Amino acid sequence: MSTSVGLADVRAAYKRIQGYVHRTPVFTCHAMDALAKRKLYFKAENMQKTGSFKARGACNAVFLEKERNPDCPGVVTHSSGNHGQAVAYAAKSAGLPCSVVVPRGTPKPKCNAIKEYGADLVFCDPTFTSRKDKCSKIAFDTGRVIIHPFDNYDVIAGQGTIAWELLEDVPDLDAILVPISGGGMTSGIAVAAREMSSKCRVYPVEPFGKELQPCLESKERLWRNPPKFIDTIADAIRTQQLGFLTFPLVCEYAESKVFSVTDDQMIEGMRLSFERMKLVVEAASGAAVYSAVHSLKELDPSPTKVGVILCGGNVDLDHLPWISRKTSY
Amino acid sequence: MSTSVGLADVRAAYKRIQGYVHRTPVFTCHAMDALAKRKLYFKAENMQKTGSFKARGACNAVFLEKERNPDCPGVVTHSSGNHGQAVAYAAKSAGLPCSVVVPRGTPKPKCNAIKEYGADLVFCDPTFTSRKDKCSKIAFDTGRVIIHPFDNYDVIAGQGTIAWELLEDVPDLDAILVPISGGGMTSGIAVAAREMSSKCRVYPVEPFGKELQPCLESKERLWRNPPKFIDTIADAIRTQQLGFLTFPLVCEYAESKVFSVTDDQMIEGMRLSFERMKLVVEAASGAAVYSAVHSLKELDPSPTKVGVILCGGNVDLDHLPWISRKTSY
Repeated sequence: MSTSVGLADVRAAYKRIQGYVHRTPVFTCHAMDALAKRKLYFKAENMQKTGSFKARGACNAVFLEKERNPDCPGVVTHSSGNHGQAVAYAAKSAGLPCSVVVPRGTPKPKCNAIKEYGADLVFCDPTFTSRKDKCSKIAFDTGRVIIHPFDNYDVIAGQGTIAWELLEDVPDLDAILVPISGGGMTSGIAVAAREMSSKCRVYPVEPFGKELQPCLESKERLWRNPPKFIDTIADAIRTQQLGFLTFPLVCEYAESKVFSVTDDQMIEGMRLSFERMKLVVEAASGAAVYSAVHSLKELDPSPTKVGVILCGGNVDLDHLPWISRKTSY
Repeated sequence: MSTSVGLADVRAAYKRIQGYVHRTPVFTCHAMDALAKRKLYFKAENMQKTGSFKARGACNAVFLEKERNPDCPGVVTHSSGNHGQAVAYAAKSAGLPCSVVVPRGTPKPKCNAIKEYGADLVFCDPTFTSRKDKCSKIAFDTGRVIIHPFDNYDVIAGQGTIAWELLEDVPDLDAILVPISGGGMTSGIAVAAREMSSKCRVYPVEPFGKELQPCLESKERLWRNPPKFIDTIADAIRTQQLGFLTFPLVCEYAESKVFSVTDDQMIEGMRLSFERMKLVVEAASGAAVYSAVHSLKELDPSPTKVGVILCGGNVDLDHLPWISRKTSY
């Protein structure tokens, strides 16, 4: 693992993972611009390999492990969601064995997606400590390298390639809105954007209850321990606390003002994306869409050209939240 | 109205409507290619202005009316669906008054979409003759020109711009699969493709029950009168009979082999698009997707590079067919 991360790492990551991840399109939409009263640029990571941006960080980290040690016996991680699929895909691309630890009871489609990439699926109890312990045990027994979902500079540099591409396509962005969970994507994007553009501000978008803003303002980890998951429909961004590597980077490079989005608001953003842009996105992406359309004018009305990260598109199509929750818009 | 249609009309239409319709992206997807065992190129007319390809033909026809008669008192059409929205949009873009006749009971979102483009909404009884009569009466009373949804050479030339763009982007396509209803899009695409490429075949994709293939093989209108609507979930392609202008063009320029798709198959294609490509498409698009992935190998296994027209994305997100019909895939 690297010891910090800068634009050079992001650039190197961009070259390393090229051909294995998509350069995703940037969409614009007049209807959305009219609602937001500014120009929005949607980076479609929902169309990324494996259905989310996580493929970028996973590929960069896994490929680097193999560069550093060609005899690397493989990789292991714990995640039933986007990171699990992404590491399985990255390992398959690198030709490395891979184990993914998932809690018993993980829905079959998610398990199948991981198995389709050729990874071993290992079940554990549905607690945070059981997942970590099982993962560590596999690493200890097999020598496989643990790929952390966010607290890993190589992962962070990989996620930074989102900003690299977006600012190449739209160099004069005033701001980028990024859904935040552990902070890997936000820190990668913030590091890259700050070095690539003098004016582009990076705003985290959190699920309500994360309480990130006071932490960023004081630059202190004010969260209550033990670490908890937030109760939100956005299953991709449920981790409350940022990582120990990502937090200082987000403090230094991102804005300390945070967009806080409720489930109903995320659903509205998600539905706007389906309806107006014809893009299938998950709830975390909906949070960024909602913020861009409705919240910017209150929090910071100045940006005229705004990037919006549609971080993923892995939704359960049998249980779309505006149907299952019976909310109506 | 013009007296026939050729590539020159399509090229002129392309220039005429530029800036008013999108040059839609062409998507590729490894997962879909793997399923289809060939290269597929998806033309994303679901992302077109007004949510369907109909904006192209409507703009070309309405703009031409105004070119021919700058004092044109406006336009009128009958359609509660994609064509109604498209004509309303085209008229607004041309600065012309517009009436759209819709049957009483048309869902509110569809009415609102038409009204948002500034058109007058006129209600009629929910029968085919009532719609036509009301439309003719408005034309007679106001002088507004009727814009037929498909049996109009200017509309056909406008739809042909889909092939113009697609073959510019992917010149060596072996085939294009086109959902068919009245035949405006299929004839426009077939006329353009036949003149632009020596090898590109155009295949109609019909909802089961349309019985187009025997008509094309015999070059005769074998359908039983009076004209009827097909019982299908694909509300954009329910017209059984092709038009009197479109039928000869489809006979001459398209293949006489027709892909016939059931509702369940369309739903499968639609869901594949949502899940694998993260694109919201309507059932008619799903028919083309299903045919490309599953039916080509039986009907004509030879094409290796195939265009698939995702004709529209206007779906009722509260009633997605795989949920409301309780089919499972």
